Amino acid sequence: MSAKRDGIGREFLAATGAEFMTPSDQMLGLPQPLLELSTGDGPEIPLPDPSEVEVPPLDLWEAIVRRESVREYTPEPISLAELSYLLFATQGVRSVVGGEYTLRTVPSAGARHALETYLLVDRVEGVAPGLYRYLALDHRLLQVERRPGVGRRVNAACYHQPFVGEAAVVFIWTAVPYRMTWRYGERGYRYLFLDAGHVCQNLYLAAEPIGCGVCAVGAFDDGALGQALGIDDDQFAVYVAVLGRRRSP
Amino acid sequence: MSAKRDGIGREFLAATGAEFMTPSDQMLGLPQPLLELSTGDGPEIPLPDPSEVEVPPLDLWEAIVRRESVREYTPEPISLAELSYLLFATQGVRSVVGGEYTLRTVPSAGARHALETYLLVDRVEGVAPGLYRYLALDHRLLQVERRPGVGRRVNAACYHQPFVGEAAVVFIWTAVPYRMTWRYGERGYRYLFLDAGHVCQNLYLAAEPIGCGVCAVGAFDDGALGQALGIDDDQFAVYVAVLGRRRSP
Repeated sequence: MSAKRDGIGREFLAATGAEFMTPSDQMLGLPQPLLELSTGDGPEIPLPDPSEVEVPPLDLWEAIVRRESVREYTPEPISLAELSYLLFATQGVRSVVGGEYTLRTVPSAGARHALETYLLVDRVEGVAPGLYRYLALDHRLLQVERRPGVGRRVNAACYHQPFVGEAAVVFIWTAVPYRMTWRYGERGYRYLFLDAGHVCQNLYLAAEPIGCGVCAVGAFDDGALGQALGIDDDQFAVYVAVLGRRRSP
Repeated sequence: MSAKRDGIGREFLAATGAEFMTPSDQMLGLPQPLLELSTGDGPEIPLPDPSEVEVPPLDLWEAIVRRESVREYTPEPISLAELSYLLFATQGVRSVVGGEYTLRTVPSAGARHALETYLLVDRVEGVAPGLYRYLALDHRLLQVERRPGVGRRVNAACYHQPFVGEAAVVFIWTAVPYRMTWRYGERGYRYLFLDAGHVCQNLYLAAEPIGCGVCAVGAFDDGALGQALGIDDDQFAVYVAVLGRRRSP
């Protein structure tokens, strides 16, 4: 092995190796940040109730053993009901407990749920192409940006990997670090990545019964992607996954 | 928001914000590290073929919407077949491609699969309590440590959270960073955490049809846990999940 012993990765691990070293903002009595980013002033699109979306049955074990990364998609769109199902499977809010935290379809350290879901929509029935954000608390979409250039900017930030440009939808998960570090301090940065992994795994699995395929993308230029999303320094892009209809089941 | 702008988390993000900045060891032509840690000299335990394990059917969507963290378990053991199934669902190798990389039930950046699975076994039929490592390439268990003190040390490293001590099995995923950084440089540290999130989500889901419950643990003392596992600086503990039989379905 010739692993580096002095890189920033090791430094990060060493500095966050034991929790409760320094009191977090929560311990200091500071108010917790909002559960979700504020809605903004773009138009909103209601999503079908996920419990009423008809998803073909697929046994869990089949879904797990079949899972593979899929980088080729048909030009067909997905339906708004399918998108609703995928969003609920990945970040859906099952309940808001005491107005203080959310319980979702995925776990999160201390139920902090510090992620936001941006969608670059290319082919979703009834949704104009553009950039959207999922309002998980209300299970709605918020339109963030309709100018066509946003797709090109996201593709460029993903180093022009061809399948990104062929997606029906690109899921871009950002993290709002303070929602996590408020409780856990700097170690919370680890949890943001762990949580994004939970979410992406559910997207992979949930895509199977509806004939879609997914490929996760970790290779992107943070700065360029953040600019494409129009986010400020309170957020950063943590993970990306590309989804489209599969060529064959 | 009063998020810190100058913590180690931000430093880590900034230093790993764009890939391909510096040539990785792979680009420099250095040989890739082994796909798995070497087996060591402890006894090995074969695991039942996961395709022959009888798992009660459960629809994927049901599994996703039901998922919750479970911190109370019955004193009943799990079977070796169930353990085999859980290991395959989380890190099972479906194929080894050209002797160079593995395809598994979970995705990994560049199919690097830089994780190892340690198991603190308390109640698995036919397996003596102790510490084991999953040999994913052979689908076997390797006994690492049988002295009873290992359980106490793991519990202490997890800050004595009571449910850790009540588990039938504790899954402890370590990362071997060089398997990832060989290709991706320091940005690879992000991918180790993303990958561990994929794995843990599959454990949560796979536990459902066999009447088990899971609780993920991110709060542990890295140094103490590494000592309990007996790992050296080539690995670090990246995530922990506790599993036992549920009190009621």
